[in-house]
Parts: sequence; C-alpha cells; structure tokens
Amino acid sequence: MPLNETQQKLVGDNAGRFSGLRALFVNTTLTPTKRGRSHTENLMDDSIAIMRGCGVEVDYLRAADHRIAFGVQPDMREEGAEVDDWPEIYWPKVKAADILVIGTPIWLGEESSICRVIIERLYAHSAQRNDKGQYVFYGKAGGAIITGNEDGIKHVSMSVLFALQHVGYTIPPQADCGWIGEVGPGPSYGDDMENGARAGHDSMFTRRNLTFMSFNLMHMAKMLKDNEGLPAVGNTVTEWS
Amino acid sequence: MPLNETQQKLVGDNAGRFSGLRALFVNTTLTPTKRGRSHTENLMDDSIAIMRGCGVEVDYLRAADHRIAFGVQPDMREEGAEVDDWPEIYWPKVKAADILVIGTPIWLGEESSICRVIIERLYAHSAQRNDKGQYVFYGKAGGAIITGNEDGIKHVSMSVLFALQHVGYTIPPQADCGWIGEVGPGPSYGDDMENGARAGHDSMFTRRNLTFMSFNLMHMAKMLKDNEGLPAVGNTVTEWS
Amino acid sequence: MPLNETQQKLVGDNAGRFSGLRALFVNTTLTPTKRGRSHTENLMDDSIAIMRGCGVEVDYLRAADHRIAFGVQPDMREEGAEVDDWPEIYWPKVKAADILVIGTPIWLGEESSICRVIIERLYAHSAQRNDKGQYVFYGKAGGAIITGNEDGIKHVSMSVLFALQHVGYTIPPQADCGWIGEVGPGPSYGDDMENGARAGHDSMFTRRNLTFMSFNLMHMAKMLKDNEGLPAVGNTVTEWS
Amino acid sequence: MPLNETQQKLVGDNAGRFSGLRALFVNTTLTPTKRGRSHTENLMDDSIAIMRGCGVEVDYLRAADHRIAFGVQPDMREEGAEVDDWPEIYWPKVKAADILVIGTPIWLGEESSICRVIIERLYAHSAQRNDKGQYVFYGKAGGAIITGNEDGIKHVSMSVLFALQHVGYTIPPQADCGWIGEVGPGPSYGDDMENGARAGHDSMFTRRNLTFMSFNLMHMAKMLKDNEGLPAVGNTVTEWS
Repeated sequence: MPLNETQQKLVGDNAGRFSGLRALFVNTTLTPTKRGRSHTENLMDDSIAIMRGCGVEVDYLRAADHRIAFGVQPDMREEGAEVDDWPEIYWPKVKAADILVIGTPIWLGEESSICRVIIERLYAHSAQRNDKGQYVFYGKAGGAIITGNEDGIKHVSMSVLFALQHVGYTIPPQADCGWIGEVGPGPSYGDDMENGARAGHDSMFTRRNLTFMSFNLMHMAKMLKDNEGLPAVGNTVTEWS
Repeated sequence: MPLNETQQKLVGDNAGRFSGLRALFVNTTLTPTKRGRSHTENLMDDSIAIMRGCGVEVDYLRAADHRIAFGVQPDMREEGAEVDDWPEIYWPKVKAADILVIGTPIWLGEESSICRVIIERLYAHSAQRNDKGQYVFYGKAGGAIITGNEDGIKHVSMSVLFALQHVGYTIPPQADCGWIGEVGPGPSYGDDMENGARAGHDSMFTRRNLTFMSFNLMHMAKMLKDNEGLPAVGNTVTEWS
Repeated sequence: MPLNETQQKLVGDNAGRFSGLRALFVNTTLTPTKRGRSHTENLMDDSIAIMRGCGVEVDYLRAADHRIAFGVQPDMREEGAEVDDWPEIYWPKVKAADILVIGTPIWLGEESSICRVIIERLYAHSAQRNDKGQYVFYGKAGGAIITGNEDGIKHVSMSVLFALQHVGYTIPPQADCGWIGEVGPGPSYGDDMENGARAGHDSMFTRRNLTFMSFNLMHMAKMLKDNEGLPAVGNTVTEWS
Repeated sequence: MPLNETQQKLVGDNAGRFSGLRALFVNTTLTPTKRGRSHTENLMDDSIAIMRGCGVEVDYLRAADHRIAFGVQPDMREEGAEVDDWPEIYWPKVKAADILVIGTPIWLGEESSICRVIIERLYAHSAQRNDKGQYVFYGKAGGAIITGNEDGIKHVSMSVLFALQHVGYTIPPQADCGWIGEVGPGPSYGDDMENGARAGHDSMFTRRNLTFMSFNLMHMAKMLKDNEGLPAVGNTVTEWS
C-alpha cells in the first residue's frame, strides 16, 4: 500500500539518515512471482519503502523463485544436491546485509515450509566467524513480517525471531509486524474487497507496528555499526579453547 | 556451580567494566525458597556471579516467595485483588533495571505458570511511556535461563524472548541458555549424581552459552545506555496521534 | 450467545443421545466471577448448551474464583501450601468427567497463566493409574476453547491439546475452537459493538467449529466408554516392570 | 534398533490382532536415502516393526527422496509446478492409511522444512470429504516420531499433532515419542558411541513411549474402523449449508 501521511513525514524527516546501511528482505511465500503478487510481499513493500526512503540500500528476494536445496550445510551441491541457489544468490546478500527481514505467510498456525528452509540455511553458517571471532551474524539486526488470513502472527514471530537471535542477530524492540483478519476464511492482506478497499490497508495497528519495526531495525543496525558491532569479549568461541 | 577458569578470567579482565548498569533476575520456579534450592536458581547464580564480577548491580527475586496477583493491570489491588506484591516489590526493580533475566523451569514443554504471571504483569505496563514517549521497556536488554529434566529450552526461550521484545526489550544475540539432560526422567540441573558430580555442571555447552548470554546482555545494555537508548524517531505513539 | 437454528436442530435431533456422559469445562480467564462475565465463558456457554442438550451432565468451574496452589503434586497442602482448592474442588470433577474442555484467553500469544496452573496440576496426577493400569486420564476426551482480541488460537490450542494427549486424553478431530477479531485492539468475543451486535456472534466459522468440537468430543467419549476405554495392551507401565 | 524382550512379547501376544489396518510412515529428514540412514528412520523402524508384527500393513516414504512441490493445492502441477510427486506417490497412500505417523528431525527447535511441506500438502486436501460428508481424514489416527541431538521433542510434537487433528485425524493418548541427548552437541539417535553402544538404544523411556504410541495408534484406528469412523452427526459441512 502507499505510505500514509505519518509514514511519509517520518521518511521525509529522515531522508538519508541511514545511508550506509544495507538490508535484505526475503519473502517466503509458497508461490513464485510468475503466479502473481503475494500478500506478504504487499506488506513487505511498505517496510522496504520506508527503509529506502531513509537511505538504506535494500535487496529483495522471493524464495519460491529459486531452487534452494534442503539441508544444513552452506553449499548443498557439495552434499549431492543437483541445484542449490543459496550459495550464490542468497548467501552473499545475507552476509552483506546489516538488516535481515524475513516475510512469511501462515499455514496451520506456522511459518511456511520455505521460511524454515531459509532458517535451516542460515543455521548452516553457524560454524563461520566474523573478523572478531564471533558468530558471523553478530552485529546485524533481524525482524519478521507475517501475513495470513486468520491466526498466528505472534507464534510465527516467536519462531523466526528466536532463530535469528540464536544464530547471532540482535532483535530490537517490536521487531515484528503483520496482518490477519477476523478468525475464519476471509481476505488476506491487500485483497480487493467488495467495498473497493484493500484488506488490511486501513489497519493503523499494522501500519504503526510496521513503522516501529522498520525504524527500530535501522536504529539498531546503525548503533551496532557505529559501535563496530558487539565487543568481542565474553562471546567468542576462541575464549573457550 | 562455581565459575570455571575461563569464566573467572573473563570476569577478572572485565572487573568494573559494566559498573553503572543494573540487572534484575526473576526466578519463576514453582517452589518457594522455604522448600529449598531451585535447579533454575542454581544456573541463574552463575550469570549473576558474572554480572556482579563485572560491576553490575544485581537484584534477585524468586516469584514463588511472593503473592503476585493474576491480571493485566499494573496494580491488581485496584481491581479487587486481596494481595498483590507486584507493584511494590517487583515493579520498582523492573523499572530500574537495564537488564532483565527471567529464569524458568520447564513443565510439559512450556515455561512455568509463574513465568506467565510475570510476563502478563510486564505486559500490563504496556500503556506506560518513558521520557521520550517510547514504551517503558525501551532501552533495556532481556534474556532467559531455562532448566528442566528433559525437553523444551528452545520452545520456552522463544516464548519468553518474544514477550520481552514485544513489550520493548532489546534481545542481543544468544540471549538464552539452559540445561536439560537426556530425554526422560533423570537428574535436573545441579542434582547430586551417583558419581559424586552434580548434573550439568560439566556441560561446557551450557557454561559457554550462559557466559555468551551474560556478556551480550551487558554489552547491549551498556551500548543502549551510552547511546541514551534508541532514538525516539519512528517508534513513538505520539507520532501517530 | 443463543444457539442458532442449525445448532438447535442438531441438539433437538440428538436429545439424550449422550446421556451417561459427564463433561467438565474449566475456564482459565484471569478474572474472578465477581468482576463480571468473561469473554471465554461467553463462548464456552454454547458448547455447554450443546452438550447439556444432548444429555451430557456438565460441570463448569472458573479457576480464578478459587485458590489453586502452584506446584506439580496432587495436593500442594502436603508440600506447604497454605490453601489449595485443587484436591477437593477440581480433582473429583476432573476424575469423574469423560470430557474435559479447557477454556482460556490469549495473552501475548499464549494461554493464560491460570491455564498453565491447570495443566501443571493435571500433570501432577501422571503417576496415578486407572483400574487397568493405564494413566488415569485414558479413556477420556479433551478439547480447548480460546478467545482473545487478536491472535493466537492455534498456538494456544497446540499447547493445550498437546498437554491433554500427553497425560492420556484422546483428542478427536477438530477439538478446538475460538474467536479473535482482526489484528490489533478491538472488541473481544461477545463485547457490545456500536452497531448493536455482539462481537463474534455472527461468525459462522466459530459457531461451526464449536459445534464440530462439541459433537466430536461427545462421539469420542461415547465410543471410548462403549468400548470400556482403550484396551490395556501395549500401553501400561506394568508391562515394563 | 532390534525390539527388546518386552516389545517382542507384546508383538508375539498380539500377532495379527490388527490385521486389516494400514499405516503410512513419512520420514521428513532433510537427507535423501542415497546419503545414508537417517536417525529418525532408525527410530521409526521400531514402530514399523511393532505394527507389522501385529498385522498392520505398513508403507514407508522418505520425503527427501522425492520432489514434492511447495503449495497448498492437491496437485501443484496444475498450478505451474514442474514436478510434483505428491499426487501420485503420496496421496494414494495417505488416503488408504488408517494410521499416519510423521517422523521429523529437529532444527532450531522446530520440525524440518520438509515436515512442513508434508503438513501443507495434507492441509491442501481439507476441501475434500469422505463418504459421510466429513473431512477426508476423519476416522484415521495420527502420531509423531521425533529425533534430534538436543532439544524440542515436545514443541515439534505440539505442532505436528495439532496439524493432524486440525485436518481430521484422531490423536490417541501419548501419540508421540522421540529421543534427544543432553543439551548441546552430541550423538543423534542411533549414532555409534565410543563405548560401542548406539546412542539412545538403551533409553527405556524412548522405547516405552514408542511402544505406547504404536499400540495406542493401532487401538484407536481399530476402534474407529470397527465403529465405521465417527458418526456423521454434528461434524459435517452439509449440516451448515
């Protein structure tokens, strides 16, 4: 949806404030782009617009467009996978990004299977270290964007944010947002409704949470960058060998 | 358990480094102190020792020793509760602390009921704001310590860390730690074993994770304090009125 | 809410069909009856009405009206608790009931703290056996009713139904139901709305799921009763001693 | 592992008792058969051996050996997927089976991504009905087998069993089992250990739970079959049209 007045003012007042930062948004909807817009993408676009407006360099990947192998190694082709788009298409962008935002739909109250593929592949890099000997994801900030037509934003967020902090991301306050309608069948985020409006676009709650999330991720990523990440004291594997 | 050599060295090298910070550890075991030591307390003690050794002023509360009312208002006596130890014993310490660590046992794969009482009572303060108009928990760092005799550290951690970030805490990398033994009945953390050792005390995994968690909480709390919290831009309710 | 035409017809066609069965509904809202109706109770009432209409003898308890001790023993007074309403008020009804339905509100995406108290106290009886040497909850059916003003029916249901099957209940298909509105602040189930209606009362989805749940619990409890429970073959502890 | 004496006696005493039943075991490990045995398979084999010993006709599928498309429709080739092994290899077996057991490893405290693919594909059939107008999975029993090297059996079980009951399976008591070792790195189920034994094979807890699960699934499936499923009263969509 287009940013509203408040969001536009925030972006205008902070144009360029976060230049130098890079963000990666990964959409884990089950459908590839050729099958049309995704509801999750629709919501992610707002956060992307805010970040870009504030000077962040943003990449966007829709995982269903690629063939990412199942597994928990950095390059699954070395383990026999025929195709694996992770090492060349995903990993360089993940590594370069100061901010990672994972977007996912909800199925049976959980994140999508493709979302778990992404998490498993992030986890696959947990043996790698940054220059200071910390886990390679230290010094980065992570968030989550969730849509569905009924129920499960918080549950999905628990799982995604936990995974991100577990591998080394910092989770700033209120680092998730999402939209669901009333319980039961109904429109998903951005669907055209009978009254001509688009589902969820009038939710100030979702709009505000998305804005808080976007700014908190930028604030945290910038603070970490300005401080050269977390000090490598008490949190490196080498101290234990 | 006593800190081991690595932990002692880390503390020695960083004595006073984090002075000026305050931490609160809340143990949500189901048993009051008069019924003896808690396994969770046993593990929390190590993190407390590390933080104190580095100059942090630490408070410890065992929730089963008090009578905290059920409810989602800051003072449940105003809602008819006979007794409510939250407003006078807990809230001032929560508010003053830069770091909050919640410790909990695992029952049926979940945090304790008392742990949920604490989370509900934190949530009760979500209408309050700090000086900058942000949620009152902004600028603080949160973590979790979990013990049980079988299974559920990650699941419990997901729930506790999610709640903390949701109300405004920042979650640094690897902000949880815990100990469980092999699946099934068996000793809980710190129990005397037949061989004279105490269960879990030889787990380098738990010891290291606890150390990472303790330092990351201190690093994050200090970074937030040195930067006067997160900038109040894009994350205050007043921007939306 | 009053049963609708479809529900009334189902009840009318099956009046007395399930006589001989007993059900217990436990509401774990955080507020006692003296503070007014609970949203969860409002929804539970419909399932109670259906079961009573079909001949089931139904008990209802609102846990916030009693003082149930924290702990994982059958009678916490023996462990030093001052008061414990579980052994005399709850346990006899739990034991007598063929069907147990736990109702809970959602707080921060999870069941209430009081809901976890109930689960911990059920778990406390896991050392007890029925006449056939099985866990004492074998041969009973369990379900869950969940309300909240935003998000979490499925997550809460996962946790509650898991706990019930873990201690010995059978979970029939679609053994949960609930109501939540669109994400964000808003009316809870049964709240008066501006248009004169009551929130959620027009949700055919919730009404239907509640009906499916109610009937499936009765079908399963009756089938188990008619078959004298699950055969005591391959599922008793004595076979392993 | 080979069945132990107790398990062998139970099987011997009940040879043929459950003939006429069919079961399907789906292993959702991330690795295909060509990369070797899976730890989860190792544990699943015991349940398979018990069921076969009791007369059940058992199928076993390892999902990583096939290419099951992402999506929530019964045949994703109709939605543009290049390959989809679900409709021809999986669905006929799922439909024919009275018992479905999903086996999964644990990654970051959750079921595998492939496990979620299977759940999404089961969910895709929720618009289908059986002869009585009920969801197509009514009258079947479901269970879960979980392995990992550290933590998460209960959490994963919550999610898998919830999904199964949600689409229509009945969950008998204690319908899950699993093995994990002490927290932290270490052997996975069935790994060779220094002392010559294989990890987890001496766990009476796991062995007993697996046996309880296997028998309860057979008892429940047989009871449902003998009663021609759940009566189609109060649980069909047609009653609501």
